[in-house]
Amino acid sequence: MKLLLTAFDPFGGDLVNPALEAVKLVSDRIDSVDVVKLEVPTVFGKSIQTVADAMAREKPDAVLCIGQAGGRFDITVERVGINVDDARIKDNEGNQPIDAPVFADGENAYFSSLPIKAIVEEIRKNGIPASISNSAGTFVCNHLLYGVLYHIAKSYPNIRGGFIHVPFIPNQVVKRPATPSMSTGDIVKGLEAAIRAIGMYSEDVKVTGGKEL
Amino acid sequence: MKLLLTAFDPFGGDLVNPALEAVKLVSDRIDSVDVVKLEVPTVFGKSIQTVADAMAREKPDAVLCIGQAGGRFDITVERVGINVDDARIKDNEGNQPIDAPVFADGENAYFSSLPIKAIVEEIRKNGIPASISNSAGTFVCNHLLYGVLYHIAKSYPNIRGGFIHVPFIPNQVVKRPATPSMSTGDIVKGLEAAIRAIGMYSEDVKVTGGKEL
Amino acid sequence: MKLLLTAFDPFGGDLVNPALEAVKLVSDRIDSVDVVKLEVPTVFGKSIQTVADAMAREKPDAVLCIGQAGGRFDITVERVGINVDDARIKDNEGNQPIDAPVFADGENAYFSSLPIKAIVEEIRKNGIPASISNSAGTFVCNHLLYGVLYHIAKSYPNIRGGFIHVPFIPNQVVKRPATPSMSTGDIVKGLEAAIRAIGMYSEDVKVTGGKEL
Amino acid sequence: MKLLLTAFDPFGGDLVNPALEAVKLVSDRIDSVDVVKLEVPTVFGKSIQTVADAMAREKPDAVLCIGQAGGRFDITVERVGINVDDARIKDNEGNQPIDAPVFADGENAYFSSLPIKAIVEEIRKNGIPASISNSAGTFVCNHLLYGVLYHIAKSYPNIRGGFIHVPFIPNQVVKRPATPSMSTGDIVKGLEAAIRAIGMYSEDVKVTGGKEL
Repeated sequence: MKLLLTAFDPFGGDLVNPALEAVKLVSDRIDSVDVVKLEVPTVFGKSIQTVADAMAREKPDAVLCIGQAGGRFDITVERVGINVDDARIKDNEGNQPIDAPVFADGENAYFSSLPIKAIVEEIRKNGIPASISNSAGTFVCNHLLYGVLYHIAKSYPNIRGGFIHVPFIPNQVVKRPATPSMSTGDIVKGLEAAIRAIGMYSEDVKVTGGKEL
Repeated sequence: MKLLLTAFDPFGGDLVNPALEAVKLVSDRIDSVDVVKLEVPTVFGKSIQTVADAMAREKPDAVLCIGQAGGRFDITVERVGINVDDARIKDNEGNQPIDAPVFADGENAYFSSLPIKAIVEEIRKNGIPASISNSAGTFVCNHLLYGVLYHIAKSYPNIRGGFIHVPFIPNQVVKRPATPSMSTGDIVKGLEAAIRAIGMYSEDVKVTGGKEL
Repeated sequence: MKLLLTAFDPFGGDLVNPALEAVKLVSDRIDSVDVVKLEVPTVFGKSIQTVADAMAREKPDAVLCIGQAGGRFDITVERVGINVDDARIKDNEGNQPIDAPVFADGENAYFSSLPIKAIVEEIRKNGIPASISNSAGTFVCNHLLYGVLYHIAKSYPNIRGGFIHVPFIPNQVVKRPATPSMSTGDIVKGLEAAIRAIGMYSEDVKVTGGKEL
Repeated sequence: MKLLLTAFDPFGGDLVNPALEAVKLVSDRIDSVDVVKLEVPTVFGKSIQTVADAMAREKPDAVLCIGQAGGRFDITVERVGINVDDARIKDNEGNQPIDAPVFADGENAYFSSLPIKAIVEEIRKNGIPASISNSAGTFVCNHLLYGVLYHIAKSYPNIRGGFIHVPFIPNQVVKRPATPSMSTGDIVKGLEAAIRAIGMYSEDVKVTGGKEL
C-alpha cells in the first residue's frame, strides 16, 4: 500500500508549521504502508493543484493531508470537507476569498473515506489524545480536504482520502498564554499510529465518537 | 413575512433548555415578521417530523431552529448541516445512532439559506457576542438542521431555513466549573436581532466571518 | 450595619468596568445593610488612599471592593491579598511597579475577613455561578485588597473587609472571541446576594470550596 | 551547590503523577548543581515532615518541590504559599481539612525565595511555555510549599525554597477532552532549565511577569 502524506508550510506569522515538522520525521515505511511525503503551499488553489499533481504522478492508494490546528488540544481527525472558502486572514499569497465555493460543480460536502474512528482509537492506544472533528474550518485546510475528495470523487474512485489536524508545538505557544500544545515527537507518534490504522482498516469501526456540538 | 421559530426540549440531564426558555420570551412580531413558535422533542426522527408537519401546516417564509450549545461562549449561527447522525449520548427516547445518514437520498450536506453573516452582525450591534459556526455537531441539532434543509430542498424551494445555537444560561453552570453562560434576557435579545436580520436581508452580506479551524 | 461598596473605573483600553456598572445598580439598602458606594481610580497608591479616606469618613462595618476579572467565568470571592505589586500593564496614571511590596511594614498577606464561603453559597442560591478564588492577581485589584486589609489590621480591628471579582459584561466580549461574560443584571443580583450574606454571617461557614490549584 | 528536588506520588485517581515521572528523569548534576531527589506522599502533614527530614539530613542549598497542575497549559513557577489547608478532595490517606492553618504560628504567607522570573525566562529560552503563578491552590501542593518555607523561615535562613507546577502528560488526557498536556520530555527539559537558573541567579531578575488576575 502506498500513502501520499502531505503537510502545509508555515502561515499566519508562524515560523514553523507543526504539520510539516512532524511529517518530515514520520517513517517512510509503517508496517506494510509506503509513505510518500509532499510539502504543500498554504495557498488557495495551488494547494489542491499541488496534491492533485502528486496523485496523478504517484498513484497512491490513500492520501492523508496534515494541517495545523492552533488552539486545539489533541490530534483531530476530520470527518468532512465543505464546499466553501471563507478566509478570516490572507493565505501565503495574499488571497482571501469570502463565501466562495471550492469547486462550482462539486457536492456541498464530501466525507473523508479514511477509517476516522479506527484512526482515533489507534492514536489513543499509543497514549496520545485524539478525537473526531466535524469541521476543518473554512480556510486552506478545509479547502484542501474538500479539493482532494473532489478529485477522488471525479477521477480516482479507488483512492481513499482524508485530513488530520495537529496542535501547536510548545515553542509556538511560549508567547501565546493559555494555549495548548503537543510535542513534535508525540505528533509524529500519533501520525504513525494513524497511518498504521489506515493500513489495517479498509472499513471504519462502528464506535461512538460524535459530539453534541 | 412569517417565521417558524422552533426550540428543543431539555436533554442530557438538564432540567431546562435555554433555547426553549428564550424562545418562549421572544416577541410574536418583530418589525414585519410574524413569529410562530414550536417546541420540538430532542429525538432523532421525531424532531424532523415535528417541524416538517408544522412547515406543511403553517407555510412559513422561513424556519429558524434554536438549540442549546453547552460550552460555547456566544450565540452561534450555523452554516451547514451534514448528512450524518453520530450520537455520543442517547436522545430523549433512548436512540443512539452511530454514523448513519439522516436521509439516505439526501445530499452530503446542505448550507443554511438564512443570511448568516448579516445575522451575526445584527446580534453584535445589540451588544451580544455572536459568530458563525461551521459545525452543528452530529447529535439531534445537526440532525434537525439537515432535515429541515432536506425538506426545503425537496419540497419547499421558497422557504429559507437555518439554525442558531445558544449557550447555557447561568443557573445551568452553577455546578459546572469554568463553563461559559449567557443570561436568558441576552439570548432573547440576540434571537430577536437574528429575526430582524432575516426580515431585512434576502441575500447575505459579504463580510469576513470564517475560521481557520 | 453599614457597608462601603467600592468599584474601579475602566482600565486597560475598555470603555466600561463591569464592577462599576454593576455597583451603580446595587440597591442602597439590602435587608439590614446600608450600602455606601465609592468609585475608585485604577491607580496604584491612589486606590488605597481613596478607600482609606472613605473608611475614616464613613466608619463602615464592612468594606467590599469590586473589580473586573476579564476571562473568568463566574463571580469570584477572593480569599487573600498578597504584599506585592507586579504589573503586566500600566495603571491609569502610567505606573507599572514590578515586584515591589504594597506596604513595606505589612504582613506577607492578609486573609479576607468576610464570610467568603457563605457569600459563594448565597450567590449560587440565586442561580448565579460563583466560587472562591485564591489569587486576586498582582495588579491594582490585589493591591487594593491588600491595602484595605492592611489598614484594617493596623487601625480598624472591628471592620471586616474583602474583595469580589466579576466577569466581563457581554458587550465587552463582542470583539474578544471565546471569552466568557455575565450580564450586568446577573452581576448585580450576585453582588446583592453577597451583601446579604455579609449581613447574615459574622463567622464563615465550614464547607468545601478549595482548589487543587 | 546542592538542590533537593521533590515530587509527589499520584493522587486523585490518576495512576501517574507527571511531577514524579519527570523528576525521575532529571539529570543528577546540572552545571554546578548536584540534584538529590525525593518522593513525597500526597498527604497533609506527612508531606511536609518528609521534606523537613530530608532537609535536616541532606543540608541542601535549595529545595525545589514539583507537583501536578492538571488543567494548566504551561510550567508554572509559584510565587507564594498561603497559610491555609482547604481540600476539595481527600488526600491519599483520607484527610480533607477545611479552612485550617498549615502552622498556627506561621506567617499568613511566605514568598518563594527562588529566582522565579529568571526560572520562567530560562525555561522559555528552551522553547517550553512557562509563567509565574500567584496561587498554588489550597490542597497538598500549597501545603508543602508553605511548610517548606515555614521551616526555612524558622530554622534554615540560608536555604532557598520554592515550588513548580507541571501540566498533565498526554496519556492522562486521553480520556479528558479539551484538557492541555505536556510531554514528559518537555517537562524534564523545563525542570532542568529551572535548576540551571537556580544555580545561576542568587537574586531574581526584575522583569514583567505579573497578572491582572
